[in-house]
Amino acid sequence: MRIVIVGGVAAGASAAARARRLSEAAEIILLERGPDVSFANCGMPYYLGGEIADRDKLLVVKPELLAGRFRIDVRTRSEVVAIDRAQKIVQVRDLVHDRLYEIPYDKLILATGAEPLKPPIPGIDLPGVFTLRNLPDIDRIKAAIDRGPQYAVVVGAGFIGLEMVENLVRRGVATTVVELQDQVLPLLDPEMAVPIAEQLRMHGVKLRVDQSVAAIAPADGGLEIHLSSGERLSAQVVILGVGVRPESKLAVAAGLEVGPRGGVKIDAHQRTSDPDIYAAGDLVEVSCHVTGRPTQIPLAGPANRQGRIAADHIFGRESRFRGSQGTAIVRVFDLAAATTGLSEKTLRRAGVPFAKSYVHPNQHAGYFPGATPMTIKLLFAPSDGKLLGAQVVGNEGVDNRINVLAVALQAGMTVFDLEEVELAYAPQFGSAKDAINMAGFVAANVLRGDCPQVYPEDLHASSPGDPLGPFLVDVRTPAEFAAGAIPGFVNIPLDDLRARIEEIPTARKVVVTCQAGQRGYYATLILKHAGRDAANLAGGYILYKRVHRQPC
Amino acid sequence: MRIVIVGGVAAGASAAARARRLSEAAEIILLERGPDVSFANCGMPYYLGGEIADRDKLLVVKPELLAGRFRIDVRTRSEVVAIDRAQKIVQVRDLVHDRLYEIPYDKLILATGAEPLKPPIPGIDLPGVFTLRNLPDIDRIKAAIDRGPQYAVVVGAGFIGLEMVENLVRRGVATTVVELQDQVLPLLDPEMAVPIAEQLRMHGVKLRVDQSVAAIAPADGGLEIHLSSGERLSAQVVILGVGVRPESKLAVAAGLEVGPRGGVKIDAHQRTSDPDIYAAGDLVEVSCHVTGRPTQIPLAGPANRQGRIAADHIFGRESRFRGSQGTAIVRVFDLAAATTGLSEKTLRRAGVPFAKSYVHPNQHAGYFPGATPMTIKLLFAPSDGKLLGAQVVGNEGVDNRINVLAVALQAGMTVFDLEEVELAYAPQFGSAKDAINMAGFVAANVLRGDCPQVYPEDLHASSPGDPLGPFLVDVRTPAEFAAGAIPGFVNIPLDDLRARIEEIPTARKVVVTCQAGQRGYYATLILKHAGRDAANLAGGYILYKRVHRQPC
Repeated sequence: MRIVIVGGVAAGASAAARARRLSEAAEIILLERGPDVSFANCGMPYYLGGEIADRDKLLVVKPELLAGRFRIDVRTRSEVVAIDRAQKIVQVRDLVHDRLYEIPYDKLILATGAEPLKPPIPGIDLPGVFTLRNLPDIDRIKAAIDRGPQYAVVVGAGFIGLEMVENLVRRGVATTVVELQDQVLPLLDPEMAVPIAEQLRMHGVKLRVDQSVAAIAPADGGLEIHLSSGERLSAQVVILGVGVRPESKLAVAAGLEVGPRGGVKIDAHQRTSDPDIYAAGDLVEVSCHVTGRPTQIPLAGPANRQGRIAADHIFGRESRFRGSQGTAIVRVFDLAAATTGLSEKTLRRAGVPFAKSYVHPNQHAGYFPGATPMTIKLLFAPSDGKLLGAQVVGNEGVDNRINVLAVALQAGMTVFDLEEVELAYAPQFGSAKDAINMAGFVAANVLRGDCPQVYPEDLHASSPGDPLGPFLVDVRTPAEFAAGAIPGFVNIPLDDLRARIEEIPTARKVVVTCQAGQRGYYATLILKHAGRDAANLAGGYILYKRVHRQPC
Repeated sequence: MRIVIVGGVAAGASAAARARRLSEAAEIILLERGPDVSFANCGMPYYLGGEIADRDKLLVVKPELLAGRFRIDVRTRSEVVAIDRAQKIVQVRDLVHDRLYEIPYDKLILATGAEPLKPPIPGIDLPGVFTLRNLPDIDRIKAAIDRGPQYAVVVGAGFIGLEMVENLVRRGVATTVVELQDQVLPLLDPEMAVPIAEQLRMHGVKLRVDQSVAAIAPADGGLEIHLSSGERLSAQVVILGVGVRPESKLAVAAGLEVGPRGGVKIDAHQRTSDPDIYAAGDLVEVSCHVTGRPTQIPLAGPANRQGRIAADHIFGRESRFRGSQGTAIVRVFDLAAATTGLSEKTLRRAGVPFAKSYVHPNQHAGYFPGATPMTIKLLFAPSDGKLLGAQVVGNEGVDNRINVLAVALQAGMTVFDLEEVELAYAPQFGSAKDAINMAGFVAANVLRGDCPQVYPEDLHASSPGDPLGPFLVDVRTPAEFAAGAIPGFVNIPLDDLRARIEEIPTARKVVVTCQAGQRGYYATLILKHAGRDAANLAGGYILYKRVHRQPC
């Protein structure tokens, strides 16, 4: 049995090592176009920034180890240029000696990954414009930054784009981010990305959202970047981080089926439309764990698992990939933002019915020093409360909570289950009612009808005197109210509400708010018990400001 | 409807606030024997140590707030001395004015908690000997420590005992811990507690395990503590942290059913054997989420939920407590230790069949600075891999991983599910194959028969020449082997194994080890593929040393 693997980073290296563990007899040939296999692509921005000081650290598994320990025939600088499916042969170009040769295979695993998008913009190929995929790319970028440029522009405010921004700032380069969508971190919903935008501004990063790069032109000592708004930015370095697309050229040329976004179609065992050819990693189309629909989710974790599954199936095991749920996290300076499952945007696009809820709990007991709030957004089925997605943003404990929510989502748990989750509590680590329990309570209260809510985007300011609109009550303290409030709201502090309830017209719907939502919940219940038609403003004043894009 | 609640800390205060949220009309009377309600008992050790500088921080919800916001009739320093179930009346002693009075109730909720055990030791009531339950207790301890004692003895190395130890050390007091069992943190399995014992020693704490206090006697300027070993310790302060027992005297006197350990028996709605009396918190017997059997698990999280459920049921809701799984975490200096579900000790005692596995993965990508290993122990059903319990110990990321495992256990997940869990990965937060995935792989490899394992406690040293014992192979590097190895093992480095396989007698069983278990896994597969009867030593040399209590 000869297994040929094309691509040696996450999925390819995993498949190779797994194949060897399953068989000592198999011949395993790993072909990698670049100079390195199994390198830490997620670490590259931190090598640029200096947090990872030693480049060697990025070489997680070296070819010698794959060769010595796993008896894998590793051939770097070796590009597969064609697949002859009838003959079961790949044609390989040895990039060092520039010669072509052929390798017959019994089973072929494609793990060619995804390539950075390069939009067809004038000047995109100028010196000083970079994309980031492998170590030679980061070497080039690092060399450019080592020359001490004053200004950089990062195009694309996704996870990798912002990691590059953080590290450019760390290197002392004044950085502007240009993003096509009207928010940073487009994988998150816009209101969840607002704290990240604030954080970037706080660190001196200039944001240009809802804009594209129209052209890049050479300018005195650098580049001039022309934005769609007409604005022109000067920079010595431009880094493109506008996304990736499956590198499926080879698969397409071989006549393998691909999806509408170019991802190679596979079955649950990673097998392509040719039963002797498997594909794994960023080049494949995966099924979304939530909707079951095909999508592209380029992530290292699923890539590793897919490589493993492909090897398993070659050796007769029935391992199945259960779909990807897109769990991801990014640190942006002092904040972290994370997501699992579907976002509100994606649910809308997919036409999946959903409800949502927000909480702003501390990461650990408020009485212990260092407590800081995070925001948790849950997306769930209105029918039964099944979790559809979640997003978390905050300073600390974000990884912990997104992981809990990722497992809950994988397990098919509901928001009612989250009320009951028994998490670890000591003052340094959590609360007797953990942030996750709080998120569950609020969502479940909505579904049970205990506390109806109004979303901030649906709240249209009305004056207290307008008998057609809802009567708006802010139950924070007078000091909090004076420091900033939503137009149209009347201040009746929670602890005065029972005494002053007659100030609220009985015939009108009432919308209540507070800072984070909890006092609004108490107030809503008091009003409901008094027979009023009351609802709580989801996420309170904090969320209102984010939805309406006010500084927070 | 008048609801009377006895006890105003976790369960009692939760029940009171929840009852008000469910009804504006109910009369709610909260009776608390002590001076404070809803205080942060879990924060008290850190107030002693100074990390929580402000005592006021420990008063999470003050009586005025419960009264003002929730219209709860809060009566502190009010002890319920008897329940007349026939008349539905409680007799209350006003401890301030030392007078007795009666309160009729419609529904009664008992939330009297648990009281620290005071073993009947001569001298247990001497000045300088303290237990810790409420704020007056910590005030007394703090006053004693403020006087600058040189030595302290903490009796009991459980969670609270060790929190007190850490904070005594922080205050500069030389501290000895005396523990009846032969390990610290008896809720954990002994091998998992070894790093905690090391950590305590590293911070100058003296450990006396497998010993009890026989007597405490006055001595010059302090106390002399007589241990069962005959050793005598001098100290100015002795703190007892030997456990708690349900404070169910009142319930017992009223003829309510209690379990064998004194916990009040309740149904799934927290109702006692009297349908008008509920009980919630540390005084009740709970059902273990894993075995379904009755047990006592005094924890703040479940107490809060039980209070909520009792109030729910009074108002006609069918909320049910799903049992407790005993999720808990403690920080001990630079380490954290955590548990969920059952320990190996408890499984043995309960006669539940189990298998176990160990891994020592880093909390985040090894290539990112600050990576440190943790140990994860999984306990699971040998039949189907269903998770029965888990323990984690390490420097960082322990809270994250125990929470993931707690949710997985709640959801009834298997170790096969853990292989597939899609957790958040960025270099600062995790790995493409997260610590949890690694734990799942190892456990699943055992169950699938891919990699048989031998537990270190079952490994009896045999010489390589002894044809009756297994042939023992250590596949680490010669340098690692030379630095310390298990007696009887022969060193054949992993990368030489194929070439030197003939050095291993074909007729004998082979047990392989390495440092943490991963190279041993690879070696086991190579040997199995060569037709050998091989097994991997679970947890490698690291675990071996812990099981055999060697310094690590």
